Amino acid sequence: MASHNIAVVPGDGIGPEVVDAALPLVEGAAADSGVTVETTRFDWGTEYYLDHGEMMPDDALDRLAEFDAIFLGAVGHPDVPDHVTLHGLLLPIRKGFDQYVCKRPNVLFEGIESPLRGYEPGDIDFVVYRENTEGEYADVGGREHRGLAHETAVQSAVFTRRGTERIVRAAFEAATRREGHLTSITKSNAQAHSMVFWDEVVADVSEEFPSVDVERLLVDAAAMDLIRRPHEFDVVVASNLFGDVLTDIGAQITGSMGLAPSGNVHPGGEYPSMFEPVHGSAPDIVGEGVANPLATVLSWSLLFEDLEEQRVAADLWQAVVDQLGDDSAPRTPDLGGDAGTEQVVADLQSRL
Amino acid sequence: MASHNIAVVPGDGIGPEVVDAALPLVEGAAADSGVTVETTRFDWGTEYYLDHGEMMPDDALDRLAEFDAIFLGAVGHPDVPDHVTLHGLLLPIRKGFDQYVCKRPNVLFEGIESPLRGYEPGDIDFVVYRENTEGEYADVGGREHRGLAHETAVQSAVFTRRGTERIVRAAFEAATRREGHLTSITKSNAQAHSMVFWDEVVADVSEEFPSVDVERLLVDAAAMDLIRRPHEFDVVVASNLFGDVLTDIGAQITGSMGLAPSGNVHPGGEYPSMFEPVHGSAPDIVGEGVANPLATVLSWSLLFEDLEEQRVAADLWQAVVDQLGDDSAPRTPDLGGDAGTEQVVADLQSRL
Ligand SMILES: CC(C)[C@H](C(=O)O)[C@@H](O)C(=O)O
Ligand SMILES: CC(C)[C@H](C(=O)O)[C@@H](O)C(=O)O
Repeated sequence: MASHNIAVVPGDGIGPEVVDAALPLVEGAAADSGVTVETTRFDWGTEYYLDHGEMMPDDALDRLAEFDAIFLGAVGHPDVPDHVTLHGLLLPIRKGFDQYVCKRPNVLFEGIESPLRGYEPGDIDFVVYRENTEGEYADVGGREHRGLAHETAVQSAVFTRRGTERIVRAAFEAATRREGHLTSITKSNAQAHSMVFWDEVVADVSEEFPSVDVERLLVDAAAMDLIRRPHEFDVVVASNLFGDVLTDIGAQITGSMGLAPSGNVHPGGEYPSMFEPVHGSAPDIVGEGVANPLATVLSWSLLFEDLEEQRVAADLWQAVVDQLGDDSAPRTPDLGGDAGTEQVVADLQSRL
Repeated sequence: MASHNIAVVPGDGIGPEVVDAALPLVEGAAADSGVTVETTRFDWGTEYYLDHGEMMPDDALDRLAEFDAIFLGAVGHPDVPDHVTLHGLLLPIRKGFDQYVCKRPNVLFEGIESPLRGYEPGDIDFVVYRENTEGEYADVGGREHRGLAHETAVQSAVFTRRGTERIVRAAFEAATRREGHLTSITKSNAQAHSMVFWDEVVADVSEEFPSVDVERLLVDAAAMDLIRRPHEFDVVVASNLFGDVLTDIGAQITGSMGLAPSGNVHPGGEYPSMFEPVHGSAPDIVGEGVANPLATVLSWSLLFEDLEEQRVAADLWQAVVDQLGDDSAPRTPDLGGDAGTEQVVADLQSRL
């Protein structure tokens, strides 16, 4: 009987609400397929920071390294600046465990109304492969002449060939398993150092994948085209920042941030990968019990897929699809319903 | 009788089509208000580049400096990389003439269907003040170890206090003339050097404008919110790159890139400002005579507003509003019609 050790970091805001609500469901779904999930909970995050002066202990990465995967709820708190919380918890895990593929599927599910006119369930189905360890998120830069009239701040994006090639290659591989269409996002007309380099790497790697048809799109045009013609996208590959923006658009046009799952994947097994709902800590609804747990359940599905537990992954995914497709099923307010987190999970349970 | 000398650079692709079609209309509208427009045409752009090896002559800025304003059609050509054409023509004018305010109104006009469900004409009306001379478009960076496995490309964004304060201040001033609501776009959670600085400048400048209500929004959330709740935006202030992406979303949700005007404004009169439709050179429809001239006419309206020729500005703007509001008026294909550029201009002429 397969067994997996998973580190669970519920984090801030609605993170613990959705993580705790979903966990028994997830464990049950795994057990149904003969898979044991052993979870260890780490109460790191902003509460921990307010007590200890750091978002997680110094040896956090060493401790997490022992696990087969990590599940993260959310990071971010109204009382502490985001650059403190995120640089203290989320980003160091992505970087420290070399989770260079941020994989974000965007699907317009049956039963969900897109905010875009004329788009019906089934019309939108693409996946973004976002570079997740460098680029515009490099912690390189600084400020000089603080507070003076000639103060200058510099923020440097760093793109390495190794870092760029591997995310581009992962996206090409994904395209061969999907419709064979890859869209590479750049801003080469304005960022002649980094983005022209990115384009060259895409051109190089594309030679290994003659069956994949490659389109290059500027990030501004891409933002537009995700509204104008989202049905034409299949696999999108983008830098850290561009991927960040485009996946939020992807979540929005497919109905709700409450449905967007993500995986921060380190392929190869040297380090654990981390899975998280895209929505964040949502301070405005904390404690109300109405946070949508579906992005969490879908993120667990991605986790099991990555652990090659295809049946568990499929069961969880399908339970969400079934629920959304059922008019009479409970929904949280972000999806136009008035149900709470627990009710939605209980209904999912009945579909497993 | 007021007279203005305007440099006209039709540029590439559909640039000359829309600029040439609109010019007689614009001159006529000005004459109706007793304003003389003297235009001088400069045939710079990619054709010029293919002949001369540069997008415009070395003394181009000196020659343009003599004018009261510049009108640009579009830059970009399928045969020459964008970073060559744009760094050769558009960007040096924006930077060289210190046109630090890129002003882009986004209005959902009567007669236009938004791609967003539930949005009706009149529901969307905001303006983006985009920083236009520095930030992520700084030409700072480079590449090392070209072609080798450890190749690294660096692209540095440069934000100065002077450069940031002045665009933020311009946006606050605009907010006092509008609904008093300003949204500042950042990515402070991931870009702790530049964007935390930006936030501090916004906080400082906001003290000068106690009547303006300030909201801070991360760029990814902003991209989402322009789809989810565009009616709540009034004035948006953003860095060069973030403004670029958000204004394309703005153009799309208000119906068409063919309707989006822009001004690259140097306030103060030391240098000429430059006005241009946002759409670009659109190589796919060049020569077909179907390019939408309305963004060009609206951009001329912004030009006259900047020259304090309010009546000419209002007349041109109103002619476009009237035409769009009229079911039976001709429309170009991007707006769902089958009319050509000339027909649309002739119809506008009849409304002046
Ligand atoms: C919280 C933030 C640092 C993060 C990011 O920008 O990557 C988030 O927006 C995301 O997309 O996961
Ligand atoms: C053509 C390009 C350099 C330009 C920009 O990015 O500023 C364009 O997209 C725009 O928005 O005017």
